[in-house]
Amino acid sequence: MDNLLVIEKLINSFQKLPGVGYKTAQRYAYKIIDMERADAEEFARQIIEVKDKVRYCEICGNFSEDVICPICKNQNRNHSIICVVKDPKDVVAFERVKDFDGVYHVLHGCISPLDNKGPDDIRIKELIDRIKDGSVTEVIMATNPDVEGEATAIYISKLLKPLMIKCTRIAQGISIGSDIEYADEITLSKALDQRVEL
Amino acid sequence: MDNLLVIEKLINSFQKLPGVGYKTAQRYAYKIIDMERADAEEFARQIIEVKDKVRYCEICGNFSEDVICPICKNQNRNHSIICVVKDPKDVVAFERVKDFDGVYHVLHGCISPLDNKGPDDIRIKELIDRIKDGSVTEVIMATNPDVEGEATAIYISKLLKPLMIKCTRIAQGISIGSDIEYADEITLSKALDQRVEL
Repeated sequence: MDNLLVIEKLINSFQKLPGVGYKTAQRYAYKIIDMERADAEEFARQIIEVKDKVRYCEICGNFSEDVICPICKNQNRNHSIICVVKDPKDVVAFERVKDFDGVYHVLHGCISPLDNKGPDDIRIKELIDRIKDGSVTEVIMATNPDVEGEATAIYISKLLKPLMIKCTRIAQGISIGSDIEYADEITLSKALDQRVEL
Repeated sequence: MDNLLVIEKLINSFQKLPGVGYKTAQRYAYKIIDMERADAEEFARQIIEVKDKVRYCEICGNFSEDVICPICKNQNRNHSIICVVKDPKDVVAFERVKDFDGVYHVLHGCISPLDNKGPDDIRIKELIDRIKDGSVTEVIMATNPDVEGEATAIYISKLLKPLMIKCTRIAQGISIGSDIEYADEITLSKALDQRVEL
């Protein structure tokens, strides 16, 4: 298979996808060979199209095909509540719930000194600019419950204090459907701390 | 994210790859968005190129960019020994070993009555045609050690008997580096059956 350069090149490209090693990339490449030509063409076209058409929403930083994303454009949503998330995929997760009718702000990362990521490297300035006009009443910090996510939530909440804006954090506790027996100590401790009256 | 059709379409295409569900496809699509444009273009071009250039070798049935694949073309290899495998990826596995200097025959499947696959649905006729000129001395059956692979190996060996050609089967037994404690009974039984003198 030494000079099957075309397949090898495609396998290399597939390996650039997250979590894909040589074996998986090879399976993907062989699948492409077995595909209908039309499907493969469509696939190739979509890759280019995504690069061409998808950009970041100028308001919230989420993926968008227009200057402003559909969520920020939607006047039926509550624009006075902003849910702050780390990545665009977190927006997808919240939208799936369908309970939240506010808008989002995507930080594109969290503060992480170990990765040399400071407050200026994520979209915190843009968040403050959005809030300044006074129409926002609450900012919900929905970053991940890990060290970086917590640090980012606390940092932003301190910035918002002088602006007199309510800043909340999503509840942390035991997941629905999980087993208390297998929950880690930090989660159980949070679940106790944040217990609510019945 | 309702009308982000371009991303959704790409996610759908990624889901056509083997073993890729929605979540993984989404991660892949987001990776494409974050990629350099040149890398994405290269990726798209390779998908088309693979469809355009890769075909099956007319002799062995392996993937090839020419009418005849590099292995069948190579006159330094021993063309009198044919290793019969199920899929092109099995050729890659044997080539990695570097011990085998014979040639291959890719069946593109195994006999499997449950999947409605009979001897005429895989490249058995082509194998017999290759052998008929008398230059082949040995056929090594290297199909998988499962029901279909065994059935196919036995079927082909019976076809070859009247042609007076040596037909061998790759050894089955305990894998190198594995633990006898965890080996299944059939493997251990085969390992005992096929024991060799030290």
